Amino acid sequence: MKIALSQLNVTIGALEGNVQKMGEAINRAIADNADLIVFSELSLCGYIPKDMLNYDSFVKRGYDALEQLKPLTEKIGVVVGMPTWSRLEKGKRLYNSAVLIHKGEVVAEVHKTLLPTYDIFDEYRYFEPASELSVVEFKGVRLAITICEDLWNLDDPKLYSRTPMDELISQDPDIMINLSGSPFSYNHVEERKNRMVNNALHYGLPLVYVNQVGAHTDILFDGGSLFINRSGEIAEELNYFEEDYRCIDWDVDSVYPDNSQDRKDYDIEMIHDALVMGIRDYFAKMGFKKALLGSSGGIDSAVINALAVKALGAENVLAVLMPSKYSSEGSVLDAEKLAENLGCNYTTIPIQDMVNSVEASLSNEFEGKSPDVTEENIQARSRGLLLMAMSNKFGYILLNTSNKSETAVGYATLYGDMCGGLSALGDLYKMQVYEMARFINRNGEIIPEEIITKPPSAELRFDQKDSDSLPEYKVLDKILFNYIELQKGWREIVDLGYDEATVRRVVKLVDRNEYKRFQAAPILRISNLAFGVGRQMPLVAEFNN
Amino acid sequence: MKIALSQLNVTIGALEGNVQKMGEAINRAIADNADLIVFSELSLCGYIPKDMLNYDSFVKRGYDALEQLKPLTEKIGVVVGMPTWSRLEKGKRLYNSAVLIHKGEVVAEVHKTLLPTYDIFDEYRYFEPASELSVVEFKGVRLAITICEDLWNLDDPKLYSRTPMDELISQDPDIMINLSGSPFSYNHVEERKNRMVNNALHYGLPLVYVNQVGAHTDILFDGGSLFINRSGEIAEELNYFEEDYRCIDWDVDSVYPDNSQDRKDYDIEMIHDALVMGIRDYFAKMGFKKALLGSSGGIDSAVINALAVKALGAENVLAVLMPSKYSSEGSVLDAEKLAENLGCNYTTIPIQDMVNSVEASLSNEFEGKSPDVTEENIQARSRGLLLMAMSNKFGYILLNTSNKSETAVGYATLYGDMCGGLSALGDLYKMQVYEMARFINRNGEIIPEEIITKPPSAELRFDQKDSDSLPEYKVLDKILFNYIELQKGWREIVDLGYDEATVRRVVKLVDRNEYKRFQAAPILRISNLAFGVGRQMPLVAEFNN
Repeated sequence: MKIALSQLNVTIGALEGNVQKMGEAINRAIADNADLIVFSELSLCGYIPKDMLNYDSFVKRGYDALEQLKPLTEKIGVVVGMPTWSRLEKGKRLYNSAVLIHKGEVVAEVHKTLLPTYDIFDEYRYFEPASELSVVEFKGVRLAITICEDLWNLDDPKLYSRTPMDELISQDPDIMINLSGSPFSYNHVEERKNRMVNNALHYGLPLVYVNQVGAHTDILFDGGSLFINRSGEIAEELNYFEEDYRCIDWDVDSVYPDNSQDRKDYDIEMIHDALVMGIRDYFAKMGFKKALLGSSGGIDSAVINALAVKALGAENVLAVLMPSKYSSEGSVLDAEKLAENLGCNYTTIPIQDMVNSVEASLSNEFEGKSPDVTEENIQARSRGLLLMAMSNKFGYILLNTSNKSETAVGYATLYGDMCGGLSALGDLYKMQVYEMARFINRNGEIIPEEIITKPPSAELRFDQKDSDSLPEYKVLDKILFNYIELQKGWREIVDLGYDEATVRRVVKLVDRNEYKRFQAAPILRISNLAFGVGRQMPLVAEFNN
Repeated sequence: MKIALSQLNVTIGALEGNVQKMGEAINRAIADNADLIVFSELSLCGYIPKDMLNYDSFVKRGYDALEQLKPLTEKIGVVVGMPTWSRLEKGKRLYNSAVLIHKGEVVAEVHKTLLPTYDIFDEYRYFEPASELSVVEFKGVRLAITICEDLWNLDDPKLYSRTPMDELISQDPDIMINLSGSPFSYNHVEERKNRMVNNALHYGLPLVYVNQVGAHTDILFDGGSLFINRSGEIAEELNYFEEDYRCIDWDVDSVYPDNSQDRKDYDIEMIHDALVMGIRDYFAKMGFKKALLGSSGGIDSAVINALAVKALGAENVLAVLMPSKYSSEGSVLDAEKLAENLGCNYTTIPIQDMVNSVEASLSNEFEGKSPDVTEENIQARSRGLLLMAMSNKFGYILLNTSNKSETAVGYATLYGDMCGGLSALGDLYKMQVYEMARFINRNGEIIPEEIITKPPSAELRFDQKDSDSLPEYKVLDKILFNYIELQKGWREIVDLGYDEATVRRVVKLVDRNEYKRFQAAPILRISNLAFGVGRQMPLVAEFNN
């Protein structure tokens, strides 16, 4: 049996466009004499469609799209992912399904059993789990079809009491097929492959594993679909961060050589590619072309500038320099040099007149008051205002330049440097931003060395350094990682050997800045715990955990 | 058996403060010779603690707090809601539990079976459902203890395959006890009472129903705890929007008179009280005292001004007038008169100089370009910047003044009039804002009549009216209600008799402004479908539903 794996970059809700892409893949598979083609989880409507699923009209559009695929299935079986009506008297109204169509008819409809509801996943919000599971027979081959999480309950700890393949294996399947929507995170790549290999070994069956690729706002899908043989060798591994297709000629008795890619967790190149894809897809899927950013001469905006040029082309990126009286000459020169290295446009809009005017407007109100953080925020918000004006006038989309460290502790001005449509670095701690800068410079200087080596500063008052307000990033980032990613309480972090006063201060800053993050731009997720939908904290609360 | 119902306003995560409150209620119940006191769902830590539940340290603090309550239980049984470890080999790590303590010991631990995961609820993210259910015997009385949603599967349509009381009734209970965290919405008040009465009637048992009261950022809990007798009469109904306590002397054979309050759905006074509680609790629980708002002389800021004065006291509210060259003289006078009627402070900061300065800074960039929405946004953002500066300098919290209609269609400037820590009107359509204004004026003019009668305008250019850009609010609000609350697709709304071009334009505006709402302030929820956590839409997507 010949099986085609189609790893597509679909758009959420773009049923017509997605059907078009699927049709092309089906025709290619027919040309390859494939018996079956497999798409990814909810491939028809894109994964994750969120509350669009609450609209009957959305679900119906899925069925309409399925009708459009049916005429293409005369010579080939097609397995597509889509939401289907459960039609239950008791339970949720939808299933997350894999539908097999052939010769214009629905041959089988398989429902997802394990509904991930944690981190960025919220599937029990919409779907009823499968009750009974059945192997699907197609052209004499017994297919054990499952959907994503269904294959993730094999290893301990087990999050679910049921393990779908344990139920299917008694029905004597020949091969496992899994439709997946498994997002990228830098510590998930090896794990995912290992878990899929473990399934092949444990059940003694080959596995066709088709994953989604592409960015859906904040959530990045890396693809890397697999064909694993019954001995646990990865015979095919599809590309990462781009669409791909492979047709395998599978025979029960065949042996396949290991052909897997050597991909390691926490690979900076992989993170780089993920971010570039994230920026590119955000723009492409929203129908935007041009980006702008505030370029301060600091490391964060430099890395964003480089990533944006990579993703959108130098001609589509505008760096806006907005020096104040506190901006060092070096910063301005560094930002200019960076733009020249990148070959992108840049322009300079000094902010001092505007800041003076704001302060004059407030002089009656502020009479007798000393300068404080208010005046620093006025500068940051003046820049935000100018950038948004440029965005409105010329149709550029503003890229936010915050990193995870400052987003965590609130070292950023709401409606100021927190402005922007997309945060591409919001899941990278400051030390990871430096790592990314060095990666960008791997073949020669793009980001001027001065930007990488000078002490970080917001330049909102004379001689300001980040280290005036915050612990050194080397320490700060580790405390943050323990608190955010590892979800340790402050006492546990102190027990690791960190200074108690520092830990308590950092943790308190994270807690009390929930209100800022509530209004932050969507953040491209690269870790297993990013700010945004993956970390849902109460706003009004007493913390102290 | 004497049973005390304790309806408390707890704070999320404030274990010590919550235990303190509970201790006072327990002592009062002991003084009343109560045998048992019942608190609400997750009362120990506050409902909904969200991802705090992912921290081991948070769960442990709950157990520590329970220890503090134990010494108070020598003479009385105490039923408290808290997260408990599931200690399962397969499944989630926590239960949502009701714990009965007596004479310093845990006598019983009951787990929630039905885990709401829709709208604002996300319980399956954290909790494992109960497997087996048991009646708890206490002082010779057989208690059927359930938690909130457990009693909501009686009426059709049934969202769950299990109905917990159907399992418990076979164990011959004497009385039902339900710990609840049932939020307010204006169309939920009658429904909730009816459902609880139906439970009493269906199972032929009395019901002690204890609900939480108070605001948790966006989600408002109205209290209204109940004691319903076996004939379905509401013998006790606790107060709404405030803490309350009642000790009932329950006897199996007693008959109780109906003593219920006449509360109707969609009551404007109830909505008013909910919003006032929402503002008050946001400030009280965050440790803030003072609020400011931009007062334009329009209806939205007028209503916010009045609600803020009601919630925080006139002395704690500052109205900031920020006229531009487009502001009518009437608007300024109306805003002043409003502040005088309310007795709150107000000040005037003209924005024209600042706007001129911004435009001068951008004159090189904008050379040859005609004025457009950019210049309107510059005004709105200048006001946002000034308000935030006042907030920073004096410690006022900025109240956002957007309503649901403009939030829906994006008729608001991101980082401009969308600024603010809390949106109190973001779940009221424009026509509801008018209704609220008339309610505020029910005993005499507080909001000047001119504010209510003049045509709505953003006053960002000469002679601007909302109706230049939007359909009349009477029509707009109905289309929005159908699209947002009723989740109808545009074709279904057209079928109701609305103009197709108008419907499609409105729906498209809602869809394409997801990105603005993503960065909006938290919105006090009063409907059954508010923007925020209750409506989670993809940002990058093709809509057309």
